[in-house]
Amino acid sequence: MSKPLEGFRILDFTQFMSGPMCTLLLSDFGAEVIKIENPPLGDATRYGAIVDNGVSGHFATRNRGKKSIVMNMKDEKQKELFLELLKTADAVVENYKPGTMEKFGLSFEKMQEVNPKIVLTSISGYGQEGPYASHGAFDQTIQAESGVMSVTGFPGTDPVKCGVPIADYCGGLCGCIGTLMAMLEAQRTGHGRHVDVSMMDAMIFCLENSMTTYLRNGVIPEQTGNGYASSAPIGAYKCRDGVPLMISVSTDSLWQSFCRAVDRPDWAADESLATMTQRANRRAEVDAMVAELFSHYDSEELARRMQEAKMVYGKVNNLAAVAEHPQVAFRKTMVNASYPNGVSFTVPGSPILMSGMERQMEYEAVPLGYNTIEVLKEVADEDKVHEIFDPVLKNVEETIKTRYGK
Amino acid sequence: MSKPLEGFRILDFTQFMSGPMCTLLLSDFGAEVIKIENPPLGDATRYGAIVDNGVSGHFATRNRGKKSIVMNMKDEKQKELFLELLKTADAVVENYKPGTMEKFGLSFEKMQEVNPKIVLTSISGYGQEGPYASHGAFDQTIQAESGVMSVTGFPGTDPVKCGVPIADYCGGLCGCIGTLMAMLEAQRTGHGRHVDVSMMDAMIFCLENSMTTYLRNGVIPEQTGNGYASSAPIGAYKCRDGVPLMISVSTDSLWQSFCRAVDRPDWAADESLATMTQRANRRAEVDAMVAELFSHYDSEELARRMQEAKMVYGKVNNLAAVAEHPQVAFRKTMVNASYPNGVSFTVPGSPILMSGMERQMEYEAVPLGYNTIEVLKEVADEDKVHEIFDPVLKNVEETIKTRYGK
Repeated sequence: MSKPLEGFRILDFTQFMSGPMCTLLLSDFGAEVIKIENPPLGDATRYGAIVDNGVSGHFATRNRGKKSIVMNMKDEKQKELFLELLKTADAVVENYKPGTMEKFGLSFEKMQEVNPKIVLTSISGYGQEGPYASHGAFDQTIQAESGVMSVTGFPGTDPVKCGVPIADYCGGLCGCIGTLMAMLEAQRTGHGRHVDVSMMDAMIFCLENSMTTYLRNGVIPEQTGNGYASSAPIGAYKCRDGVPLMISVSTDSLWQSFCRAVDRPDWAADESLATMTQRANRRAEVDAMVAELFSHYDSEELARRMQEAKMVYGKVNNLAAVAEHPQVAFRKTMVNASYPNGVSFTVPGSPILMSGMERQMEYEAVPLGYNTIEVLKEVADEDKVHEIFDPVLKNVEETIKTRYGK
Repeated sequence: MSKPLEGFRILDFTQFMSGPMCTLLLSDFGAEVIKIENPPLGDATRYGAIVDNGVSGHFATRNRGKKSIVMNMKDEKQKELFLELLKTADAVVENYKPGTMEKFGLSFEKMQEVNPKIVLTSISGYGQEGPYASHGAFDQTIQAESGVMSVTGFPGTDPVKCGVPIADYCGGLCGCIGTLMAMLEAQRTGHGRHVDVSMMDAMIFCLENSMTTYLRNGVIPEQTGNGYASSAPIGAYKCRDGVPLMISVSTDSLWQSFCRAVDRPDWAADESLATMTQRANRRAEVDAMVAELFSHYDSEELARRMQEAKMVYGKVNNLAAVAEHPQVAFRKTMVNASYPNGVSFTVPGSPILMSGMERQMEYEAVPLGYNTIEVLKEVADEDKVHEIFDPVLKNVEETIKTRYGK
C-alpha cells in the first residue's frame, strides 16, 4: 500500500536527536531520506551507549529507514556532487549550529539558485539569528532557559527537567511541520522557503497556558507537582499495594461520579466541596482525604471502579509496563530496525497511523556511508563517483576499526 | 507577504488543548481554519481561568486567527449545511472521544463520499481502536500511563509529571504533521486519508531513547533528576547568589574546556576523571565538586565564563525571566490576540519562522459563533442560513448571559 510522501526526496544533514526525529517521520511516511554524514565518523550517536556488534540501538531508533552517504562539504569535488543531488531533492533539513551551512557555502539563497523549489529547514536551540543564536544548546539547557524546569517538580523542591528530552523532540516535530508546510506550497508555486525552528520557541509554545496566565496576572507560575491550580483532586495517589493511581477529577460532574465510584455519598453531598474552586482552595485537605481513601484499596480494584464510572485516570507505569501495555500491543507501537549485519533492535514506531497503510513493522538501519555509491551514481558518472568516494569510504572503514575496534 | 497554506480550508471540531494547538499552526501559516463549536456554549476553554470582559486568554492563545461557527451535528438541517461546507474543505480535525464523529454520522467513509480529497485527522488519548480506545484521557493521565512520570523527578522521590502538558502538545504537533502529509498527497492523488494520532504513542515516540535502552538491556529506567546516565557533570548547580545554572559537560573535550573556564587545571589533569564513563561512575563526587565550586561564584560571572568557553549551559529561568528574555524579544515570540470587544492578550506565537514572511504580531480571536452567517452563506442560500441559525445564535447569546452574566 502506498505511503503519502512517496516520490519526495529529503537531504538530511541532521545528527543527535531533534533533527533525526524530524526526518524519521518524513521517512516513515514514504519520503526517501538520504542522511548525509561527515566522514570519517558521521553522526556521533552511531557510537553511543547501546551498541551491539558495532551498530547502535539509539541510532537505529532515530534513523531506521534512511539511507546513509558520507560527504565532506569542505571538499569542493564532493560538494559539487551534493549540488547535483540537490537538484533532485525537495527539502534539506539540518540542525548544525547556526552559520554552519553558510560556512559550507550552502546558504538558502545558494541552494535556491540550484533548485528554486528546495525547502531548507534549520532546527537550532535559539534560532538562526539574534543575541543567543551562537549559544550552544542541548535539551536540558533549553528546558532550563525556557522555564520548563521552573514549573516541573513538587512545590518546594529544586526545579527539575522533564525526564524526556522534550525540547529536542518538540523542536524536531516543529521542524517536520515547517518542512511539510513549505513543501505543500512549493508543489503549487515552485518556490521553497527557509524554515527556522527554535527549540526555545517550541518550549514557549508548549508553555502557552502558564505564560498567558503570567502575562495577564503577573503572578509567576510555580511548580505544581502532579496537580493543577484549577481544581482538585488531581494527582497520583498511592493505593494499598503501593502502586500510585493518577486521577483527574477536573470538573464538578466528574467529582460527583468520583464520589459514587468510591462509595462516598457524604463527599458528594458536601456543599462546601461542590465546585472546582472550592476544592482547589482546599487542595491539601482534599488530597489528604483521597490519599487516605486510596490506601484502603488495591490499585487494580480502584482502576476497575474508575473505568466503570468513566473517570479519567491512569496508572503510573514504568517502561516495562509500557512495553507490555495492551494498547501498545494492539497498535503495534513497537517495530524492528535491523542492520545488514543481522543485529536487530526493537524500537518505538511512529505515533501516527493512517488509513490505507498498515503499520510497517520491519525497517532497515544502515552503517555509515552504506548508500554512497548507489545514490551518487544517479547524479554523476559512476567512475567519477568511485574515484572520489572509494578512498573516503576506505578511510571511514579504517577509522571506525581503529577507533572502535570493529 | 504570502503564507504557505493560503487557499487551504480546515474544518476544526477540536476543543481544549491538543487539537486547537494543531489547527493553530495551520492557521498561523495561512490556512483558513473554521472552528465548529457545539451550541449553546462551545469550547469549554472559553470560560476558563483568565477571563476579562467575558473573553478568555487561554482560548485566545490557542484559537487566535480562527473563525468560529456554531453547529449542532445532531440537527439534520444544520448537518446538511456542514456537508455543503465539507465540499469546500481540505481537512477536518477533531479530538472527540473515539466514536463521536461516527455518532454524528460523519465517519471518514461518509466524508470521502462527499469530498474524496478530504483528510480527517483524529487526535485522542489512546487511538481510535483497541482495548483502551474508550478510556478517557487528559494530559496528566497519559503522562502517567506512558511512563513519562516514571523517569521524571529526582531519584528517590515520587514520580512527577512534566509541568508542561506535553502529551497534549505532542499529540497536537503529531496531528498537524499527519494532516499536512495527507494533504500533500491529496494534492497529487485527489484522495485523502484518515489520520489517527494517539497521545500515548506520541509520548512513547518521545521516550524512544529510554525505551530502546530498556528493550535491549532489560534494566527499567529510573528518574535521573537533572542529570543523564551517560556522563557528568550534567545538572543545575546553585551559584553564590542562589541562582542555579544548568550545565551540560557531556563530552570529554567539553570537560577540558569546562576545567579551563573555572580555573581548575588540576581537574583537567586528573586522569581518573578524563572520560565520560569515569565521571559518570563518580557522579556523586563530581556533582559535589562542581556544587562547591559554583557556590563561590555569582551566576552572572559563571554564565559569562561558560559563554566565553563556548560551553553548553542555561539559566534556570522562571516565566518572568523568559518573558523578558533577549532572544524572545529578538524573535518577537510573543504576539497579541484581540477580541472584537477590544480586550487583548499577549500570548506565545508560533515556534516556526519562515523566509518571505514576517512574524505576524496581531491576531483576532472571536466570540462563539461570530462567523456563522458569513461562512455558511457561502455554501447555502442566505435566507435559509438565517432561518436555521438566527434562533441558534440567539440561544447562544442568552445562555452565555444567563450562565456567565455577560
